[in-house]
Amino acid sequence: MKSSYNAIAGQSVERLAALSDGIFGVAMTLLLLELHAPLKESIHSEADLLHALAALSPQLLVYLMSFLTLGIFWVGQQTQLNHIERSDRHFSWIHLAFLFCVTLMPFSTRVLAEFITYRTALFAYWANILILGATLFLSWGRATKAALIRDDVSAEVPRAICRRILIAQSLYALGALLCIFSTYWSIGFIVLLQLNYAIAPQFGKKKSE
Amino acid sequence: MKSSYNAIAGQSVERLAALSDGIFGVAMTLLLLELHAPLKESIHSEADLLHALAALSPQLLVYLMSFLTLGIFWVGQQTQLNHIERSDRHFSWIHLAFLFCVTLMPFSTRVLAEFITYRTALFAYWANILILGATLFLSWGRATKAALIRDDVSAEVPRAICRRILIAQSLYALGALLCIFSTYWSIGFIVLLQLNYAIAPQFGKKKSE
Amino acid sequence: MKSSYNAIAGQSVERLAALSDGIFGVAMTLLLLELHAPLKESIHSEADLLHALAALSPQLLVYLMSFLTLGIFWVGQQTQLNHIERSDRHFSWIHLAFLFCVTLMPFSTRVLAEFITYRTALFAYWANILILGATLFLSWGRATKAALIRDDVSAEVPRAICRRILIAQSLYALGALLCIFSTYWSIGFIVLLQLNYAIAPQFGKKKSE
Amino acid sequence: MKSSYNAIAGQSVERLAALSDGIFGVAMTLLLLELHAPLKESIHSEADLLHALAALSPQLLVYLMSFLTLGIFWVGQQTQLNHIERSDRHFSWIHLAFLFCVTLMPFSTRVLAEFITYRTALFAYWANILILGATLFLSWGRATKAALIRDDVSAEVPRAICRRILIAQSLYALGALLCIFSTYWSIGFIVLLQLNYAIAPQFGKKKSE
Repeated sequence: MKSSYNAIAGQSVERLAALSDGIFGVAMTLLLLELHAPLKESIHSEADLLHALAALSPQLLVYLMSFLTLGIFWVGQQTQLNHIERSDRHFSWIHLAFLFCVTLMPFSTRVLAEFITYRTALFAYWANILILGATLFLSWGRATKAALIRDDVSAEVPRAICRRILIAQSLYALGALLCIFSTYWSIGFIVLLQLNYAIAPQFGKKKSE
Repeated sequence: MKSSYNAIAGQSVERLAALSDGIFGVAMTLLLLELHAPLKESIHSEADLLHALAALSPQLLVYLMSFLTLGIFWVGQQTQLNHIERSDRHFSWIHLAFLFCVTLMPFSTRVLAEFITYRTALFAYWANILILGATLFLSWGRATKAALIRDDVSAEVPRAICRRILIAQSLYALGALLCIFSTYWSIGFIVLLQLNYAIAPQFGKKKSE
Repeated sequence: MKSSYNAIAGQSVERLAALSDGIFGVAMTLLLLELHAPLKESIHSEADLLHALAALSPQLLVYLMSFLTLGIFWVGQQTQLNHIERSDRHFSWIHLAFLFCVTLMPFSTRVLAEFITYRTALFAYWANILILGATLFLSWGRATKAALIRDDVSAEVPRAICRRILIAQSLYALGALLCIFSTYWSIGFIVLLQLNYAIAPQFGKKKSE
Repeated sequence: MKSSYNAIAGQSVERLAALSDGIFGVAMTLLLLELHAPLKESIHSEADLLHALAALSPQLLVYLMSFLTLGIFWVGQQTQLNHIERSDRHFSWIHLAFLFCVTLMPFSTRVLAEFITYRTALFAYWANILILGATLFLSWGRATKAALIRDDVSAEVPRAICRRILIAQSLYALGALLCIFSTYWSIGFIVLLQLNYAIAPQFGKKKSE
């Protein structure tokens, strides 16, 4: 009896995309909510205010990093959904799990910003990136198994999507391991990795795009 | 005079779906907003931070439970709207009542997380689930009565939707009653029930999906 | 030079609808954010918790009232946008003004909830409802003047929309005036008025719907 | 290898529009979240409450100004996306950078509201407007270079869009420079400029619209 409801539930890719955009939009805006204006009592001159704002720049960098992370996974999820014909219950629930990981990101960010020299904080942040990648990988597996992918999608696409997730996650794991030396090495490596994915510089391979 | 406005108001299923995705998206992300990073003053070593984060795991479990609840009702509402041809004023207002219950969920969650051994907190949480189910049931009744359902929907679908709501609500009520023994029995039963609905394991009935 | 940009700007009804659903969704969910769980220190028994939750019911009623207000204006705006063929810059900006009034509603609600016996608080709340109605009225005027309305809309529709806004605003003003006697009279009248609009009971006029 | 994923990623204009509406919606509603109701302890009469609410009007004006800023850039981005056929990775990431600047706006607003006589605060606010304009200008450059613009768009449109951004940013820069005399001159000039863009008065040029 249960399966006949399950067979008709959760089939709308549009609703899934809309909920995702809602959750990403709120999470991305809430990141910055923790960035407080300097206290009025402590500011007595233009120079004071300039220094107080400059002192916020490390925090701003951490929020930028998490905005990049969320942006990368938003593009990744969008790319999957663009190649999907329809959804089903399992696919919807894998994406709900993915979205739960998205809502965890502001928390992981705050912990890392607060405890930037602690390996535990860095591993918690990396674990968040790992489960984001894992749910996205599972989602593509479900799409393949349940034949949810659009007919006009070339065989190259699924391979490119899986390869991208596996390579990115290997590099993130390598970045996390760099904290054997120092958490700053890890953070620097991850930020450079993210900027590379965001900006996607093209060294003499114009034609492939 | 009033009815001529009422005859043209609230007819867009797309707008209703978009508002729902907005409200669900905000409610789902706000759940986690209450999860605060450990205080910097109380952390002096990696072990301190690890223990502080581990101490947050019961809270994290409660937020996961509420994310599951909201996910289940989001899938449930989506399934209804997918089978609807058009909306009308009454249908829109029943869904606005449903969405009001959605915005209550973060509050019910906070009360249960704070007072996990109190039956009153458990009943308040269960009451929230009950009114979510009741408004969704009313909504389907209105869709049937006002002929809002799409023509190509088989007669099996309305029955499957009603049956699912009634069975799920009976099991939730049973779970709430288990607090005669202990609130932990209730919570455990409800979480298992939700995971069952989310994961939908298939014991040898592959073909029915 | 300016007008050539203005001639191409702000033409998407879909984007306007999506932004509106985002703002309404956030505003409706934020209303409840102020509803705090009872303090753990003050609760020592099931009876304590029950009383503490019961003591929140007047606040809950105020949030329900504002949810109703936002719901009524969401349905009202949706009804207008459903009858629009396209948008233009002026129409978009009138709706942005309307949305600014929507974002004011959580503030007006908090003031009224805090100072429920003060006529000033009641007038501030009523002023918010008034400007919501005024911007919606202006928006319809612009739609008529700039021929944004869909061709297949019967001549009855614009009249029904204007009439509804004028009658509702007259009744709201009457409700606000009742505070000569007591603010409770005003609040009671406005809540009954809103429930009437939400539920839309039909006294023997089934066929007109 | 990387480029084959990049060739298929981030192509949905609809998803980009939906994420933008989500982020704009949250940012616009959060602006007002900082507007707190007067404290109950300090209010003893209707006159007290009236004065307390009147004392909030400068703050309300600052929030209105930022709502105008966000509204202007929302209309600007919408106008670009309306003329786009499809998106690509670079275009999506330029818009994600634009959206990051949108999430900075509530912070800039709070700093300016708190330190209204400080040139540093005014320059920070202006810098935020500048990067909003710069990313929007870059986005249009990418759309032109990668041939993302719809075929039916006349050659006049790209020129009108670029001209509008350059003229507006020149006027904003002039406004910021006015703080040589006083920050109030700057703020007054910027607010008048924004109202001019929002209301777009037409001095005897009806036909051009």
